[in-house]
Amino acid sequence: MTREQLISQIKNKKSFLCVGLDPDLNKIPEHLLKEKDPIFSFNKAIIDATREHVVAYKPNLAFYECHGAKGWESFRKTVDYIGNDIMCIADAKRGDIGNTSSFYAKTFFETYNCNAITVAPYMGEDSVSPFLEFKNKWVALLALNSNKGADDFQFIKNADREFLFEQVIKKSKKWGNEDNLMYVVGATRPEYMSLVRKHAPNHFLLVPGVGAQGGSLKEISEVGWNDDCGLLINSSRSILYASNNEDFGSAAKNAASEMHHQMEKIGIKKGFF
Amino acid sequence: MTREQLISQIKNKKSFLCVGLDPDLNKIPEHLLKEKDPIFSFNKAIIDATREHVVAYKPNLAFYECHGAKGWESFRKTVDYIGNDIMCIADAKRGDIGNTSSFYAKTFFETYNCNAITVAPYMGEDSVSPFLEFKNKWVALLALNSNKGADDFQFIKNADREFLFEQVIKKSKKWGNEDNLMYVVGATRPEYMSLVRKHAPNHFLLVPGVGAQGGSLKEISEVGWNDDCGLLINSSRSILYASNNEDFGSAAKNAASEMHHQMEKIGIKKGFF
Repeated sequence: MTREQLISQIKNKKSFLCVGLDPDLNKIPEHLLKEKDPIFSFNKAIIDATREHVVAYKPNLAFYECHGAKGWESFRKTVDYIGNDIMCIADAKRGDIGNTSSFYAKTFFETYNCNAITVAPYMGEDSVSPFLEFKNKWVALLALNSNKGADDFQFIKNADREFLFEQVIKKSKKWGNEDNLMYVVGATRPEYMSLVRKHAPNHFLLVPGVGAQGGSLKEISEVGWNDDCGLLINSSRSILYASNNEDFGSAAKNAASEMHHQMEKIGIKKGFF
Repeated sequence: MTREQLISQIKNKKSFLCVGLDPDLNKIPEHLLKEKDPIFSFNKAIIDATREHVVAYKPNLAFYECHGAKGWESFRKTVDYIGNDIMCIADAKRGDIGNTSSFYAKTFFETYNCNAITVAPYMGEDSVSPFLEFKNKWVALLALNSNKGADDFQFIKNADREFLFEQVIKKSKKWGNEDNLMYVVGATRPEYMSLVRKHAPNHFLLVPGVGAQGGSLKEISEVGWNDDCGLLINSSRSILYASNNEDFGSAAKNAASEMHHQMEKIGIKKGFF
């Protein structure tokens, strides 16, 4: 998927919502556990219920691979079911020496037809670049995460008094471009968004942490918005588990629709929709 | 596997060799491609040929998951074939917010019976701790990698003029202990080993980069050795692909045996064997 296609999706749908597909067998409605592939049945129902409201899905690999080969089969079916019109971001947080990263890239861009993958920056350029060599595929590079642990290293300052997450953005900008590289920036720290936008004014940002983790859609949109919207706001638990009864699909639809509605208002106010 | 069991293995075998199981279908002997599961056939032959020389195997997940569900099945067979006597380190470089890291930990410690997993530190404490909650299981946390890209961020200095990799070691020491936490330190940078040992005198170090990547076994052992040996030196390509003909097993055995022999000499010199 190209940047133009992504922006066009956002404009057409008046949404910049990404739904995280984190299917936890302890949380999905009990009646689904009788199905042959409960994870795919759950995802399929969530995708059916939310497709009109979203521009991206983000399956989190941990929730698939914990079931071994069977879980990877559920993942494959999920990616295929998402189809070509909606961006599929493999939330896999991979990254290794060049030769190994090439294999990870093949996994998610060839073996599975994902459009993007989340990558951890710690090992530097040759661990990230192999993912950027695939045409019309994206890296979502971890910059400033939404979790408490982000404080441990991401705010370490160098001699120029720049945070580590700023240095990650500044360096990595040279490895890719606005058409194949976006940054993961948590919604729980809106006060640092201006620093992110200082270094990456035009890049898309993948923003987790709205909803269950406490981030505010309105606040993060205000500070993170750029000329092309530039935001993919992710919500997982507050949509997936809006209900854990048989009405989970309609409850997810309502939760996604509510976020969609708020996003539409934000985009109209910005003059973008 | 406990620290005592690992040390006892090292003493009994007079070896601190780890063999990386990175089965690349473009590199394994062609006659194996006709087998039903070429990856497992290759690994099985390598394990048979090298078992007496090693104390650990390190399957690199990228080389399995690129084949989808089938690759994970090869991984499972490989882990099972390694068995309980030899440490199995899942080289997976995972790490995510706490809830997600818990699922990754379950994957490698419960769904698959690995003893250790490599983890990336960028997301901080709550991304690492879930792995440390499993009894007799280990985290091998990335500290100073062997690749060129390690220069990009791992050498960034804070106000106290400490490198990022030093800060990773200093902070993470408090999350685990010498019985469940080791550090990944590349063999290609022996000049920094004294800094690593300053902060982590007693921890085990998992050291990739000897062989194909250019690190010297003798040099890294000299500077990295501690009272319990404290080193697991990994070699992948120079053992796996010592030959790509039908004699690949005996060639791998010779390469492993040669490293084993060098390690025995080092350990005798240190008075440990």
